[in-house]
Amino acid sequence: MRIDVLTLFPEMFDGVFSSSILGKAREKGIVSLQAVNFRQFSTDKHSTVDDYPYGGGGGMVLKPEPMFAAVESLVPADGPRPRIILMCPQGETFTQQKAEQLSNEEHLIFVCGHYEGYDERIREHLVTDELSIGDYVLTGGELPAMVVIDSVARLLPGVLGNETSAVTDSFSTGLLEYPHYTRPAVFRDWEVPEVLLSGHHGRIEAWRREQSLLRTLKRRPDLLEQADLSTKERAWLQGLREREERLMERPSAHKNEQGDK
Amino acid sequence: MRIDVLTLFPEMFDGVFSSSILGKAREKGIVSLQAVNFRQFSTDKHSTVDDYPYGGGGGMVLKPEPMFAAVESLVPADGPRPRIILMCPQGETFTQQKAEQLSNEEHLIFVCGHYEGYDERIREHLVTDELSIGDYVLTGGELPAMVVIDSVARLLPGVLGNETSAVTDSFSTGLLEYPHYTRPAVFRDWEVPEVLLSGHHGRIEAWRREQSLLRTLKRRPDLLEQADLSTKERAWLQGLREREERLMERPSAHKNEQGDK
Repeated sequence: MRIDVLTLFPEMFDGVFSSSILGKAREKGIVSLQAVNFRQFSTDKHSTVDDYPYGGGGGMVLKPEPMFAAVESLVPADGPRPRIILMCPQGETFTQQKAEQLSNEEHLIFVCGHYEGYDERIREHLVTDELSIGDYVLTGGELPAMVVIDSVARLLPGVLGNETSAVTDSFSTGLLEYPHYTRPAVFRDWEVPEVLLSGHHGRIEAWRREQSLLRTLKRRPDLLEQADLSTKERAWLQGLREREERLMERPSAHKNEQGDK
Repeated sequence: MRIDVLTLFPEMFDGVFSSSILGKAREKGIVSLQAVNFRQFSTDKHSTVDDYPYGGGGGMVLKPEPMFAAVESLVPADGPRPRIILMCPQGETFTQQKAEQLSNEEHLIFVCGHYEGYDERIREHLVTDELSIGDYVLTGGELPAMVVIDSVARLLPGVLGNETSAVTDSFSTGLLEYPHYTRPAVFRDWEVPEVLLSGHHGRIEAWRREQSLLRTLKRRPDLLEQADLSTKERAWLQGLREREERLMERPSAHKNEQGDK
């Protein structure tokens, strides 16, 4: 897979593109990674890439010409059309499904703005996807591009070794992971749960599944709707939820009584 | 603010910590940023930081001793207790509210695993927060830590200049941003909307607000519930939604008829 990133800060990518999984994937020739400064595609003598917004207001806006020229320089005349991905807060929220979809492409181009807005013609006529990695404000699209690239690259065949693919598997259940423990069995008086030392695989599996369900119920109940659960498990969770609600109702009813007085 | 990151890949942070906003905030002395390899806190001769999980199964688990020792080396004997933040998929979903909350702290320590799980005693007895930046699988906690650090650092007084704070303001409405345009007025036959060239500020404001509402309705209707809208705007959006639903109903009713035959 070929991945190009258009940015005004290519040096931000140095550490991430050369370390860990991305560095190894690159060495193995599975992925080519390139950060390109689109300022070099500006045609005026000051190398301008942004300008004031029409209609007034604060902030600067990235001009269309350098961005179109930069993207077009990266698109081979023949061969498949790349996906051109704009990182922005207005984009579709990035998910694992999207990562899987993008991992089937041959060529991705990421467009990263920094502080500035994008001229709307870039959105309308140049990019194929707009992505946001979450509901928080960042300084630019560079970190979001790195996040998407990492999540896509690790799905490419040959990138992850056996030791790490297990981590992926535990995600495919749609539940949060159960608690992990390793040596020592006692650390500062805190003990590893006895069941994990029992050597009884059936009991260990049952405990892990229960912990996984409990953690998901407590932290991310929204995930349970999509998760692959047995009828028995659904009934058990429903029982826990009802018990929780009864416990919650009492103090709040009490509080309302006081408030009404 | 002091920010320390515990990681097995400190070199991943080089580019990001020295460029752009984080680089400038560091130069100005507003924030100190340090990536520390916690492998140096391992006490055995092979510098082991992970081990097999109790109870069996794939994957490795980060041991408690090096992580506790590393964190404790960074906590001053006197002074306020830092927030110790574990980056993991099981964590609370990171939001702008959380960024604002963290920006009031004096000292943040980020704990980043890589492939491996964390020994549960790290979660239970060492960290104060567990954060996830979104529902996708990444190779490690390093990129998520950079994302959180960027979003927090840009909120610190003196980090952003005036030219960029406007971008923040547009977020505080709770709506997606309206389209931006800059010169040229015509680029490859694509024209800037006439209203923006009119010089009529009232019309420009009204157009921008309408575009902002339309974009939010189309892309992120979930944001509208929390947004600060006038009664007139809510009624207008409701009208648009109802019209959309009527348009959607017709073809699907037709489809059902065919399916039933």
